[in-house]
Amino acid sequence: MHGLHLTADLRGCPAAAPLMTDPEALRLHCMQAVQAAGLNAVGELFHPFPSPGGVTGVVLLAESHLAVHTWPEIGGVTLDVYVCNLHGDNRLRAAGLLAALEAGFGATQVHHQRLDRGTPRVP
Amino acid sequence: MHGLHLTADLRGCPAAAPLMTDPEALRLHCMQAVQAAGLNAVGELFHPFPSPGGVTGVVLLAESHLAVHTWPEIGGVTLDVYVCNLHGDNRLRAAGLLAALEAGFGATQVHHQRLDRGTPRVP
Repeated sequence: MHGLHLTADLRGCPAAAPLMTDPEALRLHCMQAVQAAGLNAVGELFHPFPSPGGVTGVVLLAESHLAVHTWPEIGGVTLDVYVCNLHGDNRLRAAGLLAALEAGFGATQVHHQRLDRGTPRVP
Repeated sequence: MHGLHLTADLRGCPAAAPLMTDPEALRLHCMQAVQAAGLNAVGELFHPFPSPGGVTGVVLLAESHLAVHTWPEIGGVTLDVYVCNLHGDNRLRAAGLLAALEAGFGATQVHHQRLDRGTPRVP
């Protein structure tokens, strides 16, 4: 369960972009980013909110999960990518996935944070 | 989108506990904890893995999300609780939710971390 949790909090995202309000557009963006990063989706759930129309979504991964929340009314998005390294080192894939997710939103400001999760297993 | 993200990485969780391998037991535990904390679920998704039978799950909240991953083979669990404060200060509810989630697993070791997310809106 040793793993890496990356977060990105985005501001200045154009509210009119489909990713900000359309759960199907956001779902496709996330699934394409997962595939491009070489990670493996095992489930997905996207929920649209009523006006002003943000979306919350998650993709469950064989390697843990990603989560996204959009706030079109303030041009904000938060992204989480958490990958465990139980069967290999997925840190580069995590960074690639986060970069691919971010690239769709056209943010003018991004705040990144990271957490090392869990404890390495004794070999 | 200003909010609080709490994580707990648990070790020493009895592998035979239903929460470690039964997605329905874990789902009920999470939903009861959300309700007790005064937060609002808008969706849920739980995925069981084949042998050794861990479970990955999320509950989407009106206030953001919780995520849980279990690794019965090493007695490990990771928990995430992320709540935004867009319509009120949910920090105490986040702490209450995490404590309620943790209480079910009987861990012998817990590692807590926290992230402040996003940026407060200009009043």
